[in-house]
Amino acid sequence: MLINCAAYQGGKRIGDIAPGEISEYVKRPDCFVWVAIKDPEPQEVYAMQEEFGLHPLAVEDALTGHQRPKIEEYGDSSLFAALHVPIVKGDEIEVGELDLFVGPNYVLTVRHRFEPGFQAVRDRAEKEPHLLKRGAGYVFYALMDNVVDRYFPVVDALEVELEEIEERIFGESSPRRNIEHLYCLKHKLMVMRHMVEPLLEVTHKLYGGRVPQICQPVQEYFRDIYDHLTRVSLQLDGLRDMVITAMSVNLSMITLHEGEVTKKLAAYAALVAVPTMIAGIYGMNFAHMPELHWAFGYPLALGLMAAIDLILWRRLRRIGWL
Amino acid sequence: MLINCAAYQGGKRIGDIAPGEISEYVKRPDCFVWVAIKDPEPQEVYAMQEEFGLHPLAVEDALTGHQRPKIEEYGDSSLFAALHVPIVKGDEIEVGELDLFVGPNYVLTVRHRFEPGFQAVRDRAEKEPHLLKRGAGYVFYALMDNVVDRYFPVVDALEVELEEIEERIFGESSPRRNIEHLYCLKHKLMVMRHMVEPLLEVTHKLYGGRVPQICQPVQEYFRDIYDHLTRVSLQLDGLRDMVITAMSVNLSMITLHEGEVTKKLAAYAALVAVPTMIAGIYGMNFAHMPELHWAFGYPLALGLMAAIDLILWRRLRRIGWL
Amino acid sequence: MLINCAAYQGGKRIGDIAPGEISEYVKRPDCFVWVAIKDPEPQEVYAMQEEFGLHPLAVEDALTGHQRPKIEEYGDSSLFAALHVPIVKGDEIEVGELDLFVGPNYVLTVRHRFEPGFQAVRDRAEKEPHLLKRGAGYVFYALMDNVVDRYFPVVDALEVELEEIEERIFGESSPRRNIEHLYCLKHKLMVMRHMVEPLLEVTHKLYGGRVPQICQPVQEYFRDIYDHLTRVSLQLDGLRDMVITAMSVNLSMITLHEGEVTKKLAAYAALVAVPTMIAGIYGMNFAHMPELHWAFGYPLALGLMAAIDLILWRRLRRIGWL
Amino acid sequence: MLINCAAYQGGKRIGDIAPGEISEYVKRPDCFVWVAIKDPEPQEVYAMQEEFGLHPLAVEDALTGHQRPKIEEYGDSSLFAALHVPIVKGDEIEVGELDLFVGPNYVLTVRHRFEPGFQAVRDRAEKEPHLLKRGAGYVFYALMDNVVDRYFPVVDALEVELEEIEERIFGESSPRRNIEHLYCLKHKLMVMRHMVEPLLEVTHKLYGGRVPQICQPVQEYFRDIYDHLTRVSLQLDGLRDMVITAMSVNLSMITLHEGEVTKKLAAYAALVAVPTMIAGIYGMNFAHMPELHWAFGYPLALGLMAAIDLILWRRLRRIGWL
Amino acid sequence: MLINCAAYQGGKRIGDIAPGEISEYVKRPDCFVWVAIKDPEPQEVYAMQEEFGLHPLAVEDALTGHQRPKIEEYGDSSLFAALHVPIVKGDEIEVGELDLFVGPNYVLTVRHRFEPGFQAVRDRAEKEPHLLKRGAGYVFYALMDNVVDRYFPVVDALEVELEEIEERIFGESSPRRNIEHLYCLKHKLMVMRHMVEPLLEVTHKLYGGRVPQICQPVQEYFRDIYDHLTRVSLQLDGLRDMVITAMSVNLSMITLHEGEVTKKLAAYAALVAVPTMIAGIYGMNFAHMPELHWAFGYPLALGLMAAIDLILWRRLRRIGWL
Repeated sequence: MLINCAAYQGGKRIGDIAPGEISEYVKRPDCFVWVAIKDPEPQEVYAMQEEFGLHPLAVEDALTGHQRPKIEEYGDSSLFAALHVPIVKGDEIEVGELDLFVGPNYVLTVRHRFEPGFQAVRDRAEKEPHLLKRGAGYVFYALMDNVVDRYFPVVDALEVELEEIEERIFGESSPRRNIEHLYCLKHKLMVMRHMVEPLLEVTHKLYGGRVPQICQPVQEYFRDIYDHLTRVSLQLDGLRDMVITAMSVNLSMITLHEGEVTKKLAAYAALVAVPTMIAGIYGMNFAHMPELHWAFGYPLALGLMAAIDLILWRRLRRIGWL
Repeated sequence: MLINCAAYQGGKRIGDIAPGEISEYVKRPDCFVWVAIKDPEPQEVYAMQEEFGLHPLAVEDALTGHQRPKIEEYGDSSLFAALHVPIVKGDEIEVGELDLFVGPNYVLTVRHRFEPGFQAVRDRAEKEPHLLKRGAGYVFYALMDNVVDRYFPVVDALEVELEEIEERIFGESSPRRNIEHLYCLKHKLMVMRHMVEPLLEVTHKLYGGRVPQICQPVQEYFRDIYDHLTRVSLQLDGLRDMVITAMSVNLSMITLHEGEVTKKLAAYAALVAVPTMIAGIYGMNFAHMPELHWAFGYPLALGLMAAIDLILWRRLRRIGWL
Repeated sequence: MLINCAAYQGGKRIGDIAPGEISEYVKRPDCFVWVAIKDPEPQEVYAMQEEFGLHPLAVEDALTGHQRPKIEEYGDSSLFAALHVPIVKGDEIEVGELDLFVGPNYVLTVRHRFEPGFQAVRDRAEKEPHLLKRGAGYVFYALMDNVVDRYFPVVDALEVELEEIEERIFGESSPRRNIEHLYCLKHKLMVMRHMVEPLLEVTHKLYGGRVPQICQPVQEYFRDIYDHLTRVSLQLDGLRDMVITAMSVNLSMITLHEGEVTKKLAAYAALVAVPTMIAGIYGMNFAHMPELHWAFGYPLALGLMAAIDLILWRRLRRIGWL
Repeated sequence: MLINCAAYQGGKRIGDIAPGEISEYVKRPDCFVWVAIKDPEPQEVYAMQEEFGLHPLAVEDALTGHQRPKIEEYGDSSLFAALHVPIVKGDEIEVGELDLFVGPNYVLTVRHRFEPGFQAVRDRAEKEPHLLKRGAGYVFYALMDNVVDRYFPVVDALEVELEEIEERIFGESSPRRNIEHLYCLKHKLMVMRHMVEPLLEVTHKLYGGRVPQICQPVQEYFRDIYDHLTRVSLQLDGLRDMVITAMSVNLSMITLHEGEVTKKLAAYAALVAVPTMIAGIYGMNFAHMPELHWAFGYPLALGLMAAIDLILWRRLRRIGWL
Repeated sequence: MLINCAAYQGGKRIGDIAPGEISEYVKRPDCFVWVAIKDPEPQEVYAMQEEFGLHPLAVEDALTGHQRPKIEEYGDSSLFAALHVPIVKGDEIEVGELDLFVGPNYVLTVRHRFEPGFQAVRDRAEKEPHLLKRGAGYVFYALMDNVVDRYFPVVDALEVELEEIEERIFGESSPRRNIEHLYCLKHKLMVMRHMVEPLLEVTHKLYGGRVPQICQPVQEYFRDIYDHLTRVSLQLDGLRDMVITAMSVNLSMITLHEGEVTKKLAAYAALVAVPTMIAGIYGMNFAHMPELHWAFGYPLALGLMAAIDLILWRRLRRIGWL
């Protein structure tokens, strides 16, 4: 679905143009075209391929919309980028994709499966003509910056999640639920890492070494994005490490808890076994058992059982088994 | 077994040729020969060595058919490639091999142990003469692309397998079967990784840095293959990570389950031990035990046992031990 | 809050200057301005941006005060550095940040969230004009050296903490507390590593390879800092390794301890079960049980029970179960 | 012990020569000397040092015969190589060493501790004068190829060993033996890895980058060796990964098995405890217990016990505890 | 404490000189000064700084004597090296340090905390004037070689220690002691690794790539040291791997042993529980229990108990529970 198709001149919006007019505007040296498509039909993209003269491999990639994050140069003056956007759905993180075609005087974005779009980026850019004047490289930066900024709240939420699980682990509640949550958290971390790591690698090339021509005027801005990505990546690494540790801690806590249950059971068993033994003794059929004939033999026997149990109970309490 | 032996000119098929004529056609500058062999007899390969002038080391490799995935240059203008093809057989992944000899105007494929072959690739190429015109490099790409596309369904199936095991782990059924499945899955992942990783490494050289002459006209296509391989590799890495985690989760679940069994056993033991103790007490032989002479002593005793067990049963139920 | 704003000439302090005069002094070739700000208000930083002509991206970074450790060059002659300072608060390590803008004849420090500041560095520098004469590079070194020196006592404290936990583990006390402490220690190590590792990486560039112009006269000093960082990093790596090992040792100790408890329980159970069995035997109602009619039958039976228990007790003691 | 000392000309053996004549033959430009020593006495090696003019450090290395695998260049035209040969002795892998001195027209091999030697290599080389003509580089390749070929059967045997252990693990037999075998297998893998990894690294330099002059004419052959080494290395990596996994699987199986034993024990305990409780009840001494006076009271009681046990036994069987 | 201060000319010792004369001798082009200090007082080192013209940062390092292993160039013609020497004290490895200042015609060694010193190196060097003639680089090599040779016996001792623990693990004795020993061994390995790894890294630069001028004449000797270090490092890696494995094996053995104890306990419990049940049955008070009135009822009952226990005992023995 075509969302936006506008031409700009000197940093200012000339107005919306028809898709068929794009190739004309792209030819004008002082003009700049910015087109946004969402969940595209094949023919929409093929039309754009014709207007902008896009490379068939990149077009095919944008149509499938399931690329790993990457930034590829085609020739000297155009780029194709695939960026991933996290979509939090309940307990899963799904992956949206933004495909970008960037040329000397155009930017074409193809958005797959996620909301909201980048109207806010366009609005802000249109309010700052001096930035928009810098051309396609700047728009590319602004869109990528917006994408990377969407990673932070997701990773922060994962950190909060881990903290909640940690509390439960040391509070000894619901080890089974903890295991499931940790597993699920680990999975989400993996999804995020696959989103961030490949991007980190390619972003590095946008400001250091052989920088693509389009990005050269704004390469310090790309260093800023690289910085943000590194921070996300560090956070993810740390989280991963702690999740693994938390898993092993949880296992230790389960083992420990089991040991405590065993002790408790043994303590209760002792409280029952000792009176049973005494009762057994006074259940023997010896002809000469003087206690049996005492007037208070029975209450004394019961008292003995109670007394021994009381003493046992106190000692077990003291050593922490009850 | 010789499968196919055809000559092409200007992107169009001239016709099948006899193996003995190959060297003639290869000499013609505008001609292109594409030969396919399957599970070869030594003499077939030696005949081809003569016709194409292949390097003895590469020929030896193609005969054994048990190479690690690799792409080697021989001199300036010819390549030898060994690609692995996964063959899913029940619960195992076996490894087929496709050996490729690529020269300026020929492609010789030697297929080992797997079906189906590459007739589809040939058919499609013959329908698109403008692509076939690009020569050996393009055919090499088309074959390699086909091989790499065979990795995706296998890896996707492994992902589904893991999801099934996950469900069983958290559904607490059959931990023994889970262990075996996870171990087997781990093994299959290793087989796939050994298929993909070495290829990933060498494919990189087909589009970046010093690209072999034959691949230069289509190097952007090889970047596309590299991309696909990276995606498979990422998937495999993620799977591996989750399998290891699932193994440790399974162990935690087993330990946890054992603890629950212990508690259940203890609960039942209590339900039997307490009446036994009471019976023991009323089995004592004291001369003066007033209860023994009550008319309703016996039913009262039985009632006491039942009552205590009922109370115990309820409490144990409440704390989740039963 | 502005802490300090002084101009220097030939290594000597001319005196405090008003923030509005900074740009004047910076223009004088023989002058050097050193400004310190703490937990800044945005307008303070914007004012400094104007006076010193700082890059907007760096200024934005300094305002947020949550960067990963980094050192960035802007143009040929100015640097922006973000260094982390550990703040030990009870059982947590929080992260303070020192942002540094370094130009040919100025140093601007923006301190976030931590005490004490760097008055000591300034005092020492002012007492050694021959060092201060070397200019901004030297001041940058002196501040960075002070920051890195703050890592050592923190890491040493973590080492002491680990040793205490080790003692408790092998002394078998409070495994639950040990797990919590180890987890917490692991977390603190991660915080420290995230502080040190990125810095290590960038410091390397200040003395080897393409050294920024400002740092060239004092690059051997930066090698010294790099050395200190490497030492901290090695210590952290070692600690991390041992913490992981200690965790697994703790689990082994728990399992071992549990086994010992089981044995102890079994021993006590035996001491109760055997007399119960004997009592059961003499509680049988056979008409002809000669022992029952012996005069000393009862004391003999009790004696038998005691004797067997004594023997059992001794044997259990000997094999270490009691 | 001197095994062989022969001179070659134009790929053909001239004949055996006395060790003292070596230096003469080495000086002739068209001659080539190939000497083999086994478990050498120091004086033998020193004599060779004199004849060939070997470097003292390399000679010292060859005498001790306990080097890590390496290939070192001395000057522009001579090499010293130390290769490891696995010696399978029962359940251990010992390490033999082949030290090679290679110069423009000589090869000196010093074999330590292993059999068989390299007579087969020499025989084959003498039958193919066109290969032997290529000189020292080719002989070096032929010997190294023979050494590397000795790795395959050893690694394959380790794979078979792992498969046997796997079967036993999942067949649940002898966990103790499995642990020992896995540990021992891990150790053997380490020995093999230390043999292969350092060699892999240095072999890479024999065909890519700055290739030593002696190896240049046959560098494609060294690529073949590198290929073989990579395959061994991949196999070892895979084995290592699976051994670690098998260890953790074994622990899971042990834990699982223990849980099953616990359940079985509990089931048997229940079959004994319930009749004991019933017997206890009918052992009570209440004056009015009507059942006690029934003519069939006793058989009924026994029947009750048997009936309950039968029901219990069936249920326990159904849930798999017996 | 000054240990030695001698001047050499043409490889021969001229004689001991006073510390104050050093600067004179260093100026003479054909002279060479070799000074050794042990556990120095600050003023000693400052005096040497003056005489040799040492860099203040290196001097500070040598005074503290707690550097990580490193080799640093100062200017074109002088080096500072810090090497670690293991000091085995009971069950701990402490770290001694040798600091070396090496210039075109001097070597100054500062030894910290360890014995014996390097008199043996000096003696041997003085006996071989042709080697000593090569100058400071050779002396540097000889000292470093001596330091590295001190690593081997320590690492070999650790290997023996591991073997002893392995035997105990599989001999099933004292798991608690094994855990402690393994932990302690792991710690010692870490100490050794921190000693060797940084050195390995820097030594590489002394023979490959841009070699410092002083080391150039003897760079093949430094390759030899690098070789020794690599061997130590490989040994340490292998040890580390096996220690981790041994830890997990030990845990498995503990778990296994526990399972065996459980079975044993259950077996004994059965031997007591069954007679108790039989005794309970014959303790019932039914009016009509024919066995009770048999003359041999009692011995028969006892016989029954014994018989069942005997059968049980045999079966339990056969399945290995007793």
